[in-house]
Amino acid sequence: MSAGTYTAAILIIGDEILSGRTVDQNTPWIAEKLSDHGIKLREVRVVSDDYTDIIHAVNELRAHCTYLITTGGIGPTHDDITAAAIAQAFDVPVKEDPEARKILEDYYGTTDLNEARLKMAAVPEGAALIDNPVSGAPGFKMENVYVLAGVPRIMQGMLEGFLDGLAGGDPMLSNTITCDLFESQVAKDLGTLQSGYPDVSIGSYPQYRGGILGLSLVLRTTDAALLASATADVIALIENLGGTASAVNIRDEETKARDTG
Amino acid sequence: MSAGTYTAAILIIGDEILSGRTVDQNTPWIAEKLSDHGIKLREVRVVSDDYTDIIHAVNELRAHCTYLITTGGIGPTHDDITAAAIAQAFDVPVKEDPEARKILEDYYGTTDLNEARLKMAAVPEGAALIDNPVSGAPGFKMENVYVLAGVPRIMQGMLEGFLDGLAGGDPMLSNTITCDLFESQVAKDLGTLQSGYPDVSIGSYPQYRGGILGLSLVLRTTDAALLASATADVIALIENLGGTASAVNIRDEETKARDTG
Repeated sequence: MSAGTYTAAILIIGDEILSGRTVDQNTPWIAEKLSDHGIKLREVRVVSDDYTDIIHAVNELRAHCTYLITTGGIGPTHDDITAAAIAQAFDVPVKEDPEARKILEDYYGTTDLNEARLKMAAVPEGAALIDNPVSGAPGFKMENVYVLAGVPRIMQGMLEGFLDGLAGGDPMLSNTITCDLFESQVAKDLGTLQSGYPDVSIGSYPQYRGGILGLSLVLRTTDAALLASATADVIALIENLGGTASAVNIRDEETKARDTG
Repeated sequence: MSAGTYTAAILIIGDEILSGRTVDQNTPWIAEKLSDHGIKLREVRVVSDDYTDIIHAVNELRAHCTYLITTGGIGPTHDDITAAAIAQAFDVPVKEDPEARKILEDYYGTTDLNEARLKMAAVPEGAALIDNPVSGAPGFKMENVYVLAGVPRIMQGMLEGFLDGLAGGDPMLSNTITCDLFESQVAKDLGTLQSGYPDVSIGSYPQYRGGILGLSLVLRTTDAALLASATADVIALIENLGGTASAVNIRDEETKARDTG
């Protein structure tokens, strides 16, 4: 089964990314985990702590993707409105979950379980809890929507607990070939080459490194033989145009080593 | 006029962020520029090089926000489909722009202006060009949609050329107060304080620094007097709870210094 069969979206909830204050570290981490698990990340959205925007995004993305992962807004403060917004998106009430309350009691002790902390036991009716191995207060799951914390370390602990249980396809394999040609030099031949490999996604990414404009060609597919063949053809293409394929990053080799290690 | 009057969305187009390969550097840079210009960044989306996803996002975001800024997908290769997708979103054809062709001829010389490079002169009918001071090939503007390159240095050069011409409100001012309390300790009083300052957005952001869970409280408003008053109240709130407001970052002071410098 190809990775394209399983898709995901990430919804990042909170003003801190939109204000420019915080750089989003969650997307690249989740993206790589999903890719290794054979789930294609189709879209990322960042919205503020606003009911209308959260509800609209949740309902669009959960309908379009196999999985929706949200981060942020499940803490104890006034700006943490994710649980209430998700409940509205599913048209159910928010209720205190006895299991979540028990988790918080065990974590904080009953005397330290103040009103603010108890807010973290309130989840949409029908939600299943997601374990938080880092800081107690659980995330939750409603149908195909996985609601996680925004703090990267807590989010990562939550996601690692359930990712292996998600249905996924073959892991995405990729090679990156860096060369000393301009995009416009390779464009025509690369387009022809792409047409011959409909099941390999070939991306072309110019970038500045040390003030020099360079070019990375990234090949992605779930088929190792196709990847090897397309990689060899791209290297030949570069050399035919007088370029040097100066770096080949075989990420799938690392992935394989991890999987079998 | 308040900053909330003018809103923007960013649409990042390309597979490289979704694959986890590249960390999005464009959002924080654009977010800060918009904030200083009195434009509230309402939403960010990342979609892949896919016509359906680009067209859907462009049409939703340009209808919901004063400005839509897109980055990526305007180069010469087969995966650069942004111009064609924007044209479809506006239901107009793509046409070679004589001014854009002239810019490319001047930049590359007529003999080096190959078919791939000429693709960068093709923009949606009715588009106005956006100057590219870094690498020649222009971006373009269709109504309230600003279509920029994805390479950060090139995108920045383009945006700096037109940002001052955009209508904006008062610059957003912000203070960040870091303290040694847990979110759940400040939650109740902070909620009450927020209710008393409806025109100040107060965000609460826990984070790990060196393995220690800390807390930043971020106050944002366009009104300097309100900001000063709310900041003093938040510091008093922390001290009343036995905490120490260990760092106050007065970002608006930096902004003011820049504006008057």
